[in-house]
Amino acid sequence: MIPTPYLLFLGDAPDQLAAKVAQGIQDWRPENAVGQFRLSSCGASVGIDDLTLQEAWDAGARTLVVGVANRGGVIAQTWKDVLIEALEMGFDLASGLHNLLKDEDDLVAAADAAGRSLHDVRIPSVTYPIASGVKRTGKRCLAVGTDCSVGKMYTGLAMDAEMRKRGMKSTFRPTGQTGILITGGGVPLDAVVADFMAGAVEYLTPDNDADHWDHIEGQGSLFHASYSGVTMALVHGGQPDALVLAHEPTRTHMRGLPDYNLPSLEALRDTALLLARVVNPDCQVVGVSVNTQHLTETEANECLAEIEGRMGLPTVDPFRHGAGRLVDALQAL
Amino acid sequence: MIPTPYLLFLGDAPDQLAAKVAQGIQDWRPENAVGQFRLSSCGASVGIDDLTLQEAWDAGARTLVVGVANRGGVIAQTWKDVLIEALEMGFDLASGLHNLLKDEDDLVAAADAAGRSLHDVRIPSVTYPIASGVKRTGKRCLAVGTDCSVGKMYTGLAMDAEMRKRGMKSTFRPTGQTGILITGGGVPLDAVVADFMAGAVEYLTPDNDADHWDHIEGQGSLFHASYSGVTMALVHGGQPDALVLAHEPTRTHMRGLPDYNLPSLEALRDTALLLARVVNPDCQVVGVSVNTQHLTETEANECLAEIEGRMGLPTVDPFRHGAGRLVDALQAL
Repeated sequence: MIPTPYLLFLGDAPDQLAAKVAQGIQDWRPENAVGQFRLSSCGASVGIDDLTLQEAWDAGARTLVVGVANRGGVIAQTWKDVLIEALEMGFDLASGLHNLLKDEDDLVAAADAAGRSLHDVRIPSVTYPIASGVKRTGKRCLAVGTDCSVGKMYTGLAMDAEMRKRGMKSTFRPTGQTGILITGGGVPLDAVVADFMAGAVEYLTPDNDADHWDHIEGQGSLFHASYSGVTMALVHGGQPDALVLAHEPTRTHMRGLPDYNLPSLEALRDTALLLARVVNPDCQVVGVSVNTQHLTETEANECLAEIEGRMGLPTVDPFRHGAGRLVDALQAL
Repeated sequence: MIPTPYLLFLGDAPDQLAAKVAQGIQDWRPENAVGQFRLSSCGASVGIDDLTLQEAWDAGARTLVVGVANRGGVIAQTWKDVLIEALEMGFDLASGLHNLLKDEDDLVAAADAAGRSLHDVRIPSVTYPIASGVKRTGKRCLAVGTDCSVGKMYTGLAMDAEMRKRGMKSTFRPTGQTGILITGGGVPLDAVVADFMAGAVEYLTPDNDADHWDHIEGQGSLFHASYSGVTMALVHGGQPDALVLAHEPTRTHMRGLPDYNLPSLEALRDTALLLARVVNPDCQVVGVSVNTQHLTETEANECLAEIEGRMGLPTVDPFRHGAGRLVDALQAL
């Protein structure tokens, strides 16, 4: 686990999109962020106080999180003075960038000297077991997509937030770097060695209270030729009691695969359920989560109504309308 | 690729089973083995000449292959004198043991001094790409199992051997350490990082002549909760034109998963075909390969006839009866 709360480092993010990791933390776990730190050329803000390292430390922050993604995922030299000063002051550093903190000699030296840790959330930090397939207690929900990047993480975070608002027992279980930085822990599933993928998901979602729900962050798609093995490990390691189908209706082909059409929601439903019931015969598809960001309000409502009528399942865009109806469906199970 | 031919090192293998890697090389690629090297306490033989290191070198051997598996997969100290002498003489070393040659300081030092290579075939030695899903030329056959360890590698090797005997263009494509040692190259798929699994399979089975068949070594099972993600990557990265269903009829539960029944061959057929057609709409199931080693000849024949009648597919045990009928089915496609 990454020590919380955080100071969010936005660096020289040229625009708001480049600060989306920091924004995700502020949106979903505002209690994890005491403030933001921006360089003079920064063009983004997540709308919280700008703090010096000392002010953040005094406010309780214990990790400086690199909340900015720049081109190529590199750790910029212009950030180094702040990162090293933070280590010397007692902060840990955390990053989800492609280039690793641990590969920067000056950061490693400063961390060693100060006795602090560098958290590269793209790479696993524990040795995961081989999956046992043994039935676990507690309930699990997994979003499976017609494609990659259709809103599966958002859906899980929104359902978790809604459940906790209702006083239900719920935990979001991240499987990618953004989710791990938001909550402070999880499994970077796409970087786990093949034989241990399903075991890593079992490790992530252990036995729990019978009325507790894990919302496991989905990855890839069963229909995506590049990443379907990762999705399969989530389905079989996750033992989901409930599946939510995630979809982006304006996608013209599978992400990164111009020769591949998206599957229908019906094909996704049937395939995911067939595979999930290998490990959990009681698994149900409970709803559809549609990412309508590229549609107008009218188009979005028409799209949701059409899918809901066709599939006979509660169909929402959790960003526009909240995840209430999806949580209702889980409660009704 | 591992330099061939080999000298097979049987070490102090207590019995024939412990030498099964060496036996596999001798069975399937006898041209890769100039002889065997046994310590005085060795209780196994693969039935070829015992050669000294010098005799093997003079016969053309360029790699000493550790063809013995001992308890725990460790590299025994009693082997070290021979292994180091082999390196000094100019041999490479190759091993599929769990403990790595590269983790033995004395072997690393000897290899460095002699300018030789240590081939640990359990770990990837190349950086694999992300799968592109682009349709490749040539034909591919993949064995998919109702469970792990039901004869998928044997099936692929037997079909490849039969095709080459018929003068057809054929290559066996290993995805596990035994297969890699047998042929001298391949992808240790269970050790590849999740995001690159399907890409590793694409890398393993590139474009080829239109009438060339790759026999891709299967791994795991789509119904095995621990390893199904690896199998999924084989199905989607392999783009199979043909699937062979592999089965072991006396298995009472999934290997290592006492709570899980095996799927029916019908369920395997339907599920594998559904998933394979995502990447290759023309994929067909062409036959069934049954491992009848635990049945008598009469029981085996009854079992094969029953399955053949039920499934309407050529059904053989390639060990007892050869892979001829499976190859006939590929030729008829």
